Amino acid sequence: MPQRTIEVCYSPMLYPVYKSSESIVVVIDVLRATSAICTAFLYGAKKIIPVATVDEAFDYKQRGFLVGAERDAIKLEGFDFGNSPFHFMDEKIKGQTLVLTTTNGTQAIEAAKNAYKVVIGAFVNITVLCKWLSEQQRDIVLLCSGWKDRFNLEDSLFAGAVADELNKLEQPFKLGDSALAAMYLYQLGKADPDKFLLRSSHKERLAKLGLKEDIKYCLSFDKTPVLPVLEKGALVLMDQ
Amino acid sequence: MPQRTIEVCYSPMLYPVYKSSESIVVVIDVLRATSAICTAFLYGAKKIIPVATVDEAFDYKQRGFLVGAERDAIKLEGFDFGNSPFHFMDEKIKGQTLVLTTTNGTQAIEAAKNAYKVVIGAFVNITVLCKWLSEQQRDIVLLCSGWKDRFNLEDSLFAGAVADELNKLEQPFKLGDSALAAMYLYQLGKADPDKFLLRSSHKERLAKLGLKEDIKYCLSFDKTPVLPVLEKGALVLMDQ
Repeated sequence: MPQRTIEVCYSPMLYPVYKSSESIVVVIDVLRATSAICTAFLYGAKKIIPVATVDEAFDYKQRGFLVGAERDAIKLEGFDFGNSPFHFMDEKIKGQTLVLTTTNGTQAIEAAKNAYKVVIGAFVNITVLCKWLSEQQRDIVLLCSGWKDRFNLEDSLFAGAVADELNKLEQPFKLGDSALAAMYLYQLGKADPDKFLLRSSHKERLAKLGLKEDIKYCLSFDKTPVLPVLEKGALVLMDQ
Repeated sequence: MPQRTIEVCYSPMLYPVYKSSESIVVVIDVLRATSAICTAFLYGAKKIIPVATVDEAFDYKQRGFLVGAERDAIKLEGFDFGNSPFHFMDEKIKGQTLVLTTTNGTQAIEAAKNAYKVVIGAFVNITVLCKWLSEQQRDIVLLCSGWKDRFNLEDSLFAGAVADELNKLEQPFKLGDSALAAMYLYQLGKADPDKFLLRSSHKERLAKLGLKEDIKYCLSFDKTPVLPVLEKGALVLMDQ
């Protein structure tokens, strides 16, 4: 069997050059969409329908769904949640189907939807994610949501954490240049991710909005031992 | 005056999100197009016309120009040069207008052509490049040519070297996330760039083709104190 590969795609705009219907795609939007999605499943959400536009989200809201909607780091008025993991730590989501639209993360899920499998990754579920990835005989694309198609530091750091973990396996993956770079960044930043991200643009943006607790939570390992996977257009918990 | 910014664009495909008609773009294809271009000017080339397709290159060849043409790291038959800097260490190019098409670098030049200025960067001209950049009151985009629109390690390393140098100025630039990541990579790799690139895909590709001397030359600092700039569709030496 050929050696499995890992590539990091640093922007949804670049996804066409990495895409393959045979690969697993991990969608990453550490600050905060994918951290929030994992948290929602931890609190009992049954299903999350990611939608790309606010109009679609509004349609679902009209039909009685619980809907999260965020743009530019701010919760949109008239919706139930924004993009903060803390919004989803709520009894009312138990057993419910939620709908979510965010600036970057839900766009990345949309871009990757035809991959072999699309799963959700964040520091808060990194161990369960890496364990599952290590057991699959598939090439992996770590898809960073970035910020409006730009490279961002926190998603790259997380992609590097995954590459670093999978690089330790007995049957290691072949790391493409993109994955090597992310792994090196993680090795540099892992002792103090918060400090490593000090000058990052989105951390700055969130801190200005008073969201330091969000950042702290989103940079914590293994708060949520769940692995969300895309099935027929909706995220559900993977049967493991 | 607002603080000048530096962003690294890791693929020509991403350039639309970083582009601005007011910015300076540094086109980077360290292994080997931009290293070769600098070398050609050192050896007296008067002008280099970058073209995107082999067909265009062939037209120029028919009309009597000296033409370089490379695809997938190999010189195309029937042309005067490939993409190796050593091909351009030749008396016959003195005073001549050359034409060049390469897998990645000339595509990046084409993508950036409407920027305020497009200049050519490589380790072999890094000092003259950084000095000139530091004197301009402009935002900077460091455009990595990558490999067929994929991220590559050597162009990122060089972008990081430039960001690192400009970050030391008294009036420092604001580094975007992309530039911070590249700078961190460079700080990690600068003690031994050759070792840092050991697992990189293109270095592997060139080494297989017996091009280790090319790699060594292309990773050397300041072999060519020239600064090529795009003027009316052709590269010329900048008046300094």
